Amino acid sequence: MIPFSEMASNGLAAVRAVSPMVHHLTNHVVMNFTANITLCMGAAPVMAPCIEESPEMVSFAEALLLNIGTLDPPLVKSMLAAGKRANELGIPIILDPVGAGATRLRTEAAGRLSEELDIAVIRGNAGEVLALAGAGGKVRGVDSMDTVEHRIDTIRRYAAESERVIAVTGAMDIVTDGSRIVGIRNGHPLMGRVTGTGCGATTAVACLAAAVDDPFEAAAGALICYAIAGELAADKAGGPGTFVPHFLDALSILDRAVINSRTKAEDLS
Amino acid sequence: MIPFSEMASNGLAAVRAVSPMVHHLTNHVVMNFTANITLCMGAAPVMAPCIEESPEMVSFAEALLLNIGTLDPPLVKSMLAAGKRANELGIPIILDPVGAGATRLRTEAAGRLSEELDIAVIRGNAGEVLALAGAGGKVRGVDSMDTVEHRIDTIRRYAAESERVIAVTGAMDIVTDGSRIVGIRNGHPLMGRVTGTGCGATTAVACLAAAVDDPFEAAAGALICYAIAGELAADKAGGPGTFVPHFLDALSILDRAVINSRTKAEDLS
Amino acid sequence: MIPFSEMASNGLAAVRAVSPMVHHLTNHVVMNFTANITLCMGAAPVMAPCIEESPEMVSFAEALLLNIGTLDPPLVKSMLAAGKRANELGIPIILDPVGAGATRLRTEAAGRLSEELDIAVIRGNAGEVLALAGAGGKVRGVDSMDTVEHRIDTIRRYAAESERVIAVTGAMDIVTDGSRIVGIRNGHPLMGRVTGTGCGATTAVACLAAAVDDPFEAAAGALICYAIAGELAADKAGGPGTFVPHFLDALSILDRAVINSRTKAEDLS
Repeated sequence: MIPFSEMASNGLAAVRAVSPMVHHLTNHVVMNFTANITLCMGAAPVMAPCIEESPEMVSFAEALLLNIGTLDPPLVKSMLAAGKRANELGIPIILDPVGAGATRLRTEAAGRLSEELDIAVIRGNAGEVLALAGAGGKVRGVDSMDTVEHRIDTIRRYAAESERVIAVTGAMDIVTDGSRIVGIRNGHPLMGRVTGTGCGATTAVACLAAAVDDPFEAAAGALICYAIAGELAADKAGGPGTFVPHFLDALSILDRAVINSRTKAEDLS
Repeated sequence: MIPFSEMASNGLAAVRAVSPMVHHLTNHVVMNFTANITLCMGAAPVMAPCIEESPEMVSFAEALLLNIGTLDPPLVKSMLAAGKRANELGIPIILDPVGAGATRLRTEAAGRLSEELDIAVIRGNAGEVLALAGAGGKVRGVDSMDTVEHRIDTIRRYAAESERVIAVTGAMDIVTDGSRIVGIRNGHPLMGRVTGTGCGATTAVACLAAAVDDPFEAAAGALICYAIAGELAADKAGGPGTFVPHFLDALSILDRAVINSRTKAEDLS
Repeated sequence: MIPFSEMASNGLAAVRAVSPMVHHLTNHVVMNFTANITLCMGAAPVMAPCIEESPEMVSFAEALLLNIGTLDPPLVKSMLAAGKRANELGIPIILDPVGAGATRLRTEAAGRLSEELDIAVIRGNAGEVLALAGAGGKVRGVDSMDTVEHRIDTIRRYAAESERVIAVTGAMDIVTDGSRIVGIRNGHPLMGRVTGTGCGATTAVACLAAAVDDPFEAAAGALICYAIAGELAADKAGGPGTFVPHFLDALSILDRAVINSRTKAEDLS
């Protein structure tokens, strides 16, 4: 296994080299923020939500992100159609099960997307992922009340059984494919005080998954980049409001030297 | 009656103590901004617009905000369903009748929500509130051409008759429950040059209403907090663009001392 | 023909003098950003997407902007209904054919809007405009791979044949009504690294078209203002994140002296 910092810096370099297109079917709250995150990572965003064009747009993309944050039944159908097309074309799908476990619509939608599609990476908080895993995570709206540390075994088992990469963000981020498992201790508390930083982490994963073959390396590398940018932004920010523009700036200028010097990731396998 | 500055500082402290969840059914223009305002106030936002989950999500929330800024008939139905569930559960509803009086759809939707639901607070500009009150407010699109000062009597009568707290923002904000009435002269002209600052004021009211029993105290306290944060942000901003991040920062660090020293509210009863 | 810098400064002064209302039927990614651009130009935004009110709202507006960035069939119908009302009332329509040429839905929607409505200005990138013109622009998602410089003749021919003002933004912006043609070399590369700057340029054009009789002068003047604000913002920004708030600030304080000293526009006719 290459060093985790290399997963981050190599992955980011790969994104910038090819500028892959990342098709987002995502929630209305974070569309602008995550489109800008995509650009700052070096990729190109496209957002074509309706079923009349979502599968067709997939054919232009190098990754498909599905985020259920503001859901309705037609969007679920559009996600399934786009996802099936992505699977046919071999384009990786990254799923963000926002609020899974909170309402029946979300839990069922996340479950159905997860069952009917071949998903490369699922990125959520602990409660969302555990709800998907059927482990009875307690989800309060879209905020998790679980601590990831106590659930590492469940997450790894879920990754192994589902044959997916599972990325759980929190005080320590966990990424695992069932055999490999990494804990990432980068990041800053301000990230939890801005809307959409979780959704944005999923976007970062999708950007690397669009340019890197191994979804585990993509997810681990992306979350390291993302969390380090959060640290750099927090140094300049006066609060959660000024954090956002500084965070985008930091993502856009992130480089190998900074990544190497700041990565705090440990092999938990 | 406690001092108005105490309504603000006590209300904000209550929000931060319990971190209530505020469910927004709101317009697409301000979703990100108002979600961040919610977080900066110390509450947790959730936005689940479709009728398949909006009533269910209410049960996780401590307040329900209904904002008709980008409306369609299914959203009106979802608002009614979520609102009825909120009424059953005793969760306060805060209504923002954006553009009421401008189009038939908006005027009718605002009227129907107002009639069929037990609303705790209506927050709008003078024209919107007067349109709801049937007083023939002249609304031009979503901008009001009325000055609130000349309409205080109408607003107070409307509050008394409807048994609701009415909060009208403008050069001077007015909050009344029909008997108590306060005029708030905090704020800054830059707030009128940024999209969604009215909608954000409604979010601030919803945050306090989620943590404070008396809707009059919640509305008055929230608008004081909000307007003072606007003053603090204006000191740092170079224009309406940089105002936004500074405003969110200011909201997030607002404290009792600043509120006490800056509150400009007078009892108009 | 008056100097191009006068088209910009006179147009901006006209917007600020009358504060026209610009009705946007636009995509979800840029709603907040373009509403703020509208305010910073000195105009008033309104966004009423559904067909139940979009035509009625037109009657309050001085310009109608149609942007197909996040499209579905009901929105196309609403755009057609609002557009027909705008044509009846003599209110100028500004079309942004985002992603035309990429998917069948977008290409057909842009074509239908263009055929069935009397459009004052079409603003897009080269690929989108060439797709509309039937010239086989190669569009990759919503990003163009054409360079505008090699297509000036096609664009001018399209403007002449369609009797519309065509505004193509890129490294050099081109605005033409088929006889007059201007090339604008203002702007900054950071503008291409922020989502929605193209959509925002269309908003700027709509603001001037709402206050100025000649759509060619409106489009040329607006793109000059917009690109100069981009230069001013780039001087203050640390990257694409901080660019956005500085850009809005710069737009809001743009004045005749700065416009005169910075305009880089040449007559290409």
